[in-house]
Amino acid sequence: MLNYKRYQRNPVIKLDDRQWPNKQIEKAPIWCSVDLRDGNQALIEPMVVEEKIEFFQLLVKLGFKEIEVGFPSASQIEFDFLRQLVDRKLIPDDVTVQVLVQCREHLLKRTFEALEGVKRAIVHIYNSTSTLQRDVVFNMSKEEIKQIAVEGTKLVKEYAKKFPGKIILEYSPESFTGTEVEYALEVCTAVQDIWQPTTEDKIIFNLPATVEMNTPNVYADQIEWMNRNFKNRDTIILSVHPHNDRGTGVAISELALLAGADRVEGTLFGNGERTGNVDILTLAYNMFSQGINPELEIDNINEIIEAYERLCKMKVHERHPYAGKLVFTAFSGSHQDAINKGIKAMKERNSKIWAVPYLPIDPADIGRQYEPIVRINSQSGKGGVAFIMETYFGFKLPKAMHKEFADVIQVLSEKQGEVSPEQIMEEFKANYLDKKEPLHFRKCKIEDLSDRDESNTKATVVYTYNGVEKTFEATGNGPIDAVHNGLEKELGVHFKILDYTEHSLAGGANAQAAAYIQMVDLASGRMTFGVGISSNITRASLRAIFSAMNRLNFK
Amino acid sequence: MLNYKRYQRNPVIKLDDRQWPNKQIEKAPIWCSVDLRDGNQALIEPMVVEEKIEFFQLLVKLGFKEIEVGFPSASQIEFDFLRQLVDRKLIPDDVTVQVLVQCREHLLKRTFEALEGVKRAIVHIYNSTSTLQRDVVFNMSKEEIKQIAVEGTKLVKEYAKKFPGKIILEYSPESFTGTEVEYALEVCTAVQDIWQPTTEDKIIFNLPATVEMNTPNVYADQIEWMNRNFKNRDTIILSVHPHNDRGTGVAISELALLAGADRVEGTLFGNGERTGNVDILTLAYNMFSQGINPELEIDNINEIIEAYERLCKMKVHERHPYAGKLVFTAFSGSHQDAINKGIKAMKERNSKIWAVPYLPIDPADIGRQYEPIVRINSQSGKGGVAFIMETYFGFKLPKAMHKEFADVIQVLSEKQGEVSPEQIMEEFKANYLDKKEPLHFRKCKIEDLSDRDESNTKATVVYTYNGVEKTFEATGNGPIDAVHNGLEKELGVHFKILDYTEHSLAGGANAQAAAYIQMVDLASGRMTFGVGISSNITRASLRAIFSAMNRLNFK
Repeated sequence: MLNYKRYQRNPVIKLDDRQWPNKQIEKAPIWCSVDLRDGNQALIEPMVVEEKIEFFQLLVKLGFKEIEVGFPSASQIEFDFLRQLVDRKLIPDDVTVQVLVQCREHLLKRTFEALEGVKRAIVHIYNSTSTLQRDVVFNMSKEEIKQIAVEGTKLVKEYAKKFPGKIILEYSPESFTGTEVEYALEVCTAVQDIWQPTTEDKIIFNLPATVEMNTPNVYADQIEWMNRNFKNRDTIILSVHPHNDRGTGVAISELALLAGADRVEGTLFGNGERTGNVDILTLAYNMFSQGINPELEIDNINEIIEAYERLCKMKVHERHPYAGKLVFTAFSGSHQDAINKGIKAMKERNSKIWAVPYLPIDPADIGRQYEPIVRINSQSGKGGVAFIMETYFGFKLPKAMHKEFADVIQVLSEKQGEVSPEQIMEEFKANYLDKKEPLHFRKCKIEDLSDRDESNTKATVVYTYNGVEKTFEATGNGPIDAVHNGLEKELGVHFKILDYTEHSLAGGANAQAAAYIQMVDLASGRMTFGVGISSNITRASLRAIFSAMNRLNFK
Repeated sequence: MLNYKRYQRNPVIKLDDRQWPNKQIEKAPIWCSVDLRDGNQALIEPMVVEEKIEFFQLLVKLGFKEIEVGFPSASQIEFDFLRQLVDRKLIPDDVTVQVLVQCREHLLKRTFEALEGVKRAIVHIYNSTSTLQRDVVFNMSKEEIKQIAVEGTKLVKEYAKKFPGKIILEYSPESFTGTEVEYALEVCTAVQDIWQPTTEDKIIFNLPATVEMNTPNVYADQIEWMNRNFKNRDTIILSVHPHNDRGTGVAISELALLAGADRVEGTLFGNGERTGNVDILTLAYNMFSQGINPELEIDNINEIIEAYERLCKMKVHERHPYAGKLVFTAFSGSHQDAINKGIKAMKERNSKIWAVPYLPIDPADIGRQYEPIVRINSQSGKGGVAFIMETYFGFKLPKAMHKEFADVIQVLSEKQGEVSPEQIMEEFKANYLDKKEPLHFRKCKIEDLSDRDESNTKATVVYTYNGVEKTFEATGNGPIDAVHNGLEKELGVHFKILDYTEHSLAGGANAQAAAYIQMVDLASGRMTFGVGISSNITRASLRAIFSAMNRLNFK
């Protein structure tokens, strides 16, 4: 029995006139990657310097303009890494590096040593302001906690004056979600009064959901309250830094943007302490899927996954939005069918706008392949198998044939689980194309006798019956009819051709045609399709007849 | 470059007087597991019948009272599974099984065959109602689509009349998130008019986020609009069925509960099509963490993980809320320190309410272990190492010693990455407890000479120096002082004892004490701690002196 009575509801703020639920996301925020700091520190095997450099270069390539590179005063590795970035001139002019540091003189001194030669940097200071941390960790009054921030700001200001490059201050009231908003504002304002930001030289106030503590709307209320109550709001960049303890990191980030945030700190694939930081890629692709430019160069997700998994030694989960192996699959038959129809409709209408059921985006737009969209298992419907046949192999099975062939695959999938496209093609061959026993069509001559009134086609057909070559001649109103008549007579059976379709298979000069013939055995009432292929459309259709005859077990 | 112009913003509804952001979650909803249907169908290897039965029994044990067991008319396996549940009497009286079926007569007939002998079942019919699916998949008018639902309801009503058990109707306007709310209501109302639910025999209207299409607040608005506009609301159970395409499945479920939902369909760990269904466990633990009874028996998460991974052949991600291997770890030194202090404060105050920074819940409450809370790597602070020494091994290192020992571990972790608690203990032994060269304390006799005025303790110490046994006698105002004086004289060195602490280590009769002595070499100014353990507190302290002497390299 869960001991839920040990826990208390976290307080919420009152904000009856909140505006964020009326808003929509209109543009991408300023993105700041904290992969190399918050992400890296939470790895079982943190990256070594060379790995960090590769990761940094990946982030630059993806279009991040602000990158937190570490806590150089806290670890020699992080110090060395920043020095390498500077010494090897790896920081592009339009990228600002960010360093984290506590509000202490010796750490700030060391931080500015690490920054030597950097043209433009964000110095990110923080101290914890929550009721809980003030109480159990610091045992300090509100005033004392505020003084930590004030003194830190003064120190950064002093060091910044002497520093040749440009220094932007970021201040985080850490554990903001557990801090009274009025007090968080008071501390930020004290920092603001010392730093004296302007509309040209803004200060970054970063309001972290260090730990998620409530339903997502509560964070949005907190952000909107701050957004409305900051003084000289136009001198401030309002940043958020969401974690994911309640599994709602993406949600609180989106709601915070509605509530007025200008900037989001997060990581690729949500790496970070505990349940991780917010996943910037999901946020960006969510915007993308709504027609908003995410302002990141993330059109090749496979490349990002490969680098991330290799450098961080972490896996992207199969169901991770946009990135997971299974997220562009559709196991349900009705889903597969709807996807199929959606894609067809787009093509037919020559639609420029993506609109396909169950696929919020076109996987191809982010470098994912169409192949894994449909996986066939015992839960798949007939539409899935038909979709595979068409998209993988170009066979447009007639609708009436879908169930017949899907049943063949169903038997296999109930035995073995998932069935690959290759196996589906093998079954298609075994059951249709290569169905050549006992009757095997060999060759034929078709003569147009159109000067006569009826039965204007004469077919001379060579075939084998259990390996023994035979020949017949027959007439009809076309090749199919002629061969049908000949076979009925030859074998002494009665069958009717119900349906015939034929189409070209993809591929230039040697283009082949596929013919589908549905026939019914008039004695037993049994029905089947037969399929034949050939570069000669007549031969393809005759092969289809023989395929169907063999499937009906005519002898 | 991402081709974001191919996408359009999805429409939102206008609901200026929304109430949900003012609400808080007050109680658990009705949970309905769809693991055996929506979850299972999205597995690479769907479960076989015996695995399904084990999973069903797990769900029953976890306290689920409504369980969707499949789509028995669509697959023989799902039909057989339901028959097994009935024939083997595996459905408890307080558990209602739910079956999914399309609004078609032959499927409904087969479904009721599968249900034979069930006392109480939910028959869940659905059809897709979204603008997109009406257009590209069904090519039907609004009226025609509504008729599918109406005819389906009539059919269920007929079959239900003849069925000996109790039948509850669930109707889903599938792809609800892409449906105009007014139209979704119109279809539901048409179903309601035929089914004629009462306050005793309610109907379930399930409003799925079949595909997530917008920021989380939009779904909440849609749910609140439906909740406010349903007629005879008290005859309706308002159910939601969220997916996770935008990574906000948990968020939209929580906001939907604020907006009036009574019931949530989801899966364990968010298994399901594409990015998955909503994870019921995260929702439940989120409630738990706020002191709300989630009404599920989920106090042993390890057992759930084990069964899930084995039966579904899927992995729970390392950062999955509550369940992931890394979510109760703290890599950051300051986090470790704060956790440490939070736990201490709770103990000191004998607090009944859990309140520890960075740990939203006590891992032990859900069967997780304390061990992995702190992992030591090159990013860890001194607090982390001290925490490991105390929680794993019972050594309460004096605060002044934290940095000294953390530096030892830092060297190791920068070399090898993460350091296990066992390795930390090995280093502690090698650097302190087993530091017995060149000076090795052997034995001593302490005599109380308290009749004299000063130097009232005489110590006779046997030790080896590079393996050669030696003895000295010395006096002092206590054993430490006496041995200090003796060693200074014996070795011709000058050192001062700065700090001494000693505490018992856990463990009944054979309880040992650990002594920590900090000393400074007066010649070089170098300082160190030494540590000794013994069941005799005097011997422990003398060992600590020898440990420190060896660390200072006194010869």
